[in-house]
Amino acid sequence: MTAEPQDRVLSPEELEAALRAVGAERYHNLHPFHKLLHSGALNRGQVQAWALNRYYYQSRIPAKDAVLLSRLPTPDLRRLWRSRLEDHDGFPGADTPANGGIERWLRLATGVGLDRDYVQSTVGILPATRFAVDAYVSLVRDRSVLEAVASSLTEMFSPTIIAERVSGMLANYDFITQETLAYFTPRLTQAPRDVDFALAYVKEHARTAEQQRGAIAALTEKCNILWAQLDALHFAYVEPGYIPPGAFIPEGRRQ
Amino acid sequence: MTAEPQDRVLSPEELEAALRAVGAERYHNLHPFHKLLHSGALNRGQVQAWALNRYYYQSRIPAKDAVLLSRLPTPDLRRLWRSRLEDHDGFPGADTPANGGIERWLRLATGVGLDRDYVQSTVGILPATRFAVDAYVSLVRDRSVLEAVASSLTEMFSPTIIAERVSGMLANYDFITQETLAYFTPRLTQAPRDVDFALAYVKEHARTAEQQRGAIAALTEKCNILWAQLDALHFAYVEPGYIPPGAFIPEGRRQ
Repeated sequence: MTAEPQDRVLSPEELEAALRAVGAERYHNLHPFHKLLHSGALNRGQVQAWALNRYYYQSRIPAKDAVLLSRLPTPDLRRLWRSRLEDHDGFPGADTPANGGIERWLRLATGVGLDRDYVQSTVGILPATRFAVDAYVSLVRDRSVLEAVASSLTEMFSPTIIAERVSGMLANYDFITQETLAYFTPRLTQAPRDVDFALAYVKEHARTAEQQRGAIAALTEKCNILWAQLDALHFAYVEPGYIPPGAFIPEGRRQ
Repeated sequence: MTAEPQDRVLSPEELEAALRAVGAERYHNLHPFHKLLHSGALNRGQVQAWALNRYYYQSRIPAKDAVLLSRLPTPDLRRLWRSRLEDHDGFPGADTPANGGIERWLRLATGVGLDRDYVQSTVGILPATRFAVDAYVSLVRDRSVLEAVASSLTEMFSPTIIAERVSGMLANYDFITQETLAYFTPRLTQAPRDVDFALAYVKEHARTAEQQRGAIAALTEKCNILWAQLDALHFAYVEPGYIPPGAFIPEGRRQ
């Protein structure tokens, strides 16, 4: 709780600090499941459950970005945002591992032993994954453009979590290779580029106290969306391990 | 898994049986949290967390029903559906415990020791509760009217869960009185009346195999929406007990 009056307009630098503080408190690198994942404490079935569910998030990112792009007013802004579609969907006729984040995530999922068609069908994901991810698309459709852009700023915090994940998973799981984790390499340069634009946009357009509170709230909600996905994975596959009816059951696991 | 061809049209009686089978497998009376709740295994803070989160579900039911009503084509159908709005929102100028399910739920929540304004603000609910409940409103907006109506058919299964809950909670918690649970009494007559109409509607309008599969899928998804809410409560407040940042912390509980 801060004693600061809620209607004071923050300077752009103060706003950035407030946005970064949201991540310091709520980004999903702080979630117990993330710690288990990168420290090698999970078994192969649990890593599969993570890859399977996270695929749904990856697969909806272009839907989220297209909805946002459709609301941007100028060719300049839309061109900038379009690079996100390219990052995730790749380019026609180039079906290589380097071609788009979704394809790379599918290779991560098959790399840990899942069937490609099963992953793409999304039939085995946790309902809570679907609800959380769909809430992200709804947020970007229903709130102001400023809030929609602000919700993307979790990418400010992603280089740290990616570094932890990649080094930890490579060191701790013999079924994980550098190639399996190829998803993450381009993200280390794409995310900061996206952040540069989105953060500048938010600092320029969040001028009233109400707009600033809206931007902070949208980023907070996005953190909740990521956090809730790990809550659901942890509950179903780690502790207490109650898999909801119809969801993926790892090999050797009894329902 | 059934060996039955997916494109066979079911008779209305077979369709009803298939819908009832969804509940037998997936209704949230089968969830471990429900068993803990009615058997007296929870403490007051855990019951508060349930009442607080479930309030958000109650509070969005009229939104769900209004969206559905807006899509019904005739005054006849809309009049019938309107009774659901009356059941939940009550009537003007009659601010009594008997006046509407939302008011009665607020009394349940204050009856177990929560502050009325805090409950109504919904600031302390689990993000997963919000995502699941909002998914219900989206389902009713985005799917066919038939599927929207079918999703309401979890009420076929509610008399059993209500009976278990009321008798179990009264017997097992000294902080729960008959008056606190007054929410449930009218539901025992309202729900069967609503089911009579909705089930007849679904049996009449689901004529192709695809429509029938859609109706069954919508009811399945509604069960998932209820189940995911108990998953989130169980994870945060029972086992392992990881409360997400910003959510309600029961008195005496440390984060």
